Amino acid sequence: MEVNIPEVVEEVRALFERYEQALIDKNVDVLDATFWNSPHTIRYAIHENGYGFDEIHAHRVRRPPGPGIKLARRRLVITTLGRDIATVNLEFDMRGRDMPGRQSQTWVRLPEVGWKVVSAHVSVTEATPAY
Amino acid sequence: MEVNIPEVVEEVRALFERYEQALIDKNVDVLDATFWNSPHTIRYAIHENGYGFDEIHAHRVRRPPGPGIKLARRRLVITTLGRDIATVNLEFDMRGRDMPGRQSQTWVRLPEVGWKVVSAHVSVTEATPAY
Repeated sequence: MEVNIPEVVEEVRALFERYEQALIDKNVDVLDATFWNSPHTIRYAIHENGYGFDEIHAHRVRRPPGPGIKLARRRLVITTLGRDIATVNLEFDMRGRDMPGRQSQTWVRLPEVGWKVVSAHVSVTEATPAY
Repeated sequence: MEVNIPEVVEEVRALFERYEQALIDKNVDVLDATFWNSPHTIRYAIHENGYGFDEIHAHRVRRPPGPGIKLARRRLVITTLGRDIATVNLEFDMRGRDMPGRQSQTWVRLPEVGWKVVSAHVSVTEATPAY
């Protein structure tokens, strides 16, 4: 299973960037189109856990508009395995927070509908407690 | 791409349960064997972000022994797509915390080495701020 075939990485990168812009614009159509329309899709966000496309869509609709939580990217890693599997992981400086945020997505190229996020997780790194 | 072929789900479930037990036992060999031995593997944990197998391994070695952070499972969802892709998402009650923890894994069945976690993310849900 070939890792990081350049044109596959670029396909996923373009879709990821489209999604990031849609977060800023609160473009619910693009946000919805990015995720697998399935009861199996899961999106763990910072404040909420969405199980299934319908819950995730409801969270999108409730999303406040505005520039969002991302101030600057620290590290973006797109990894593809073969031509149908990709992971995207982004660590970023977060508005109003000292610790970095992290965003993880699992993308699968599905027959007929193409690349979709099937699972996603966004959170904030916690400072290490003093043991 | 067939979703949740029963025997594929059971394969992944068995490996996931082995991993969970290894966290409790601090069995570094099993923890290491669960993850893809690659510089591309990423594990975002609650307090640390591991890029590549070597960093992830170092985090395992530093891991304190003991019963871990999981008190009880709230919701475990294993989803398989075809015979080579799986996501595992677990929401759990967390020791000493009011809000639930979330654990996400992307598994891929790789030629020769079999099922491996290629990307993982663990975090704690944050309470919704009063806007």
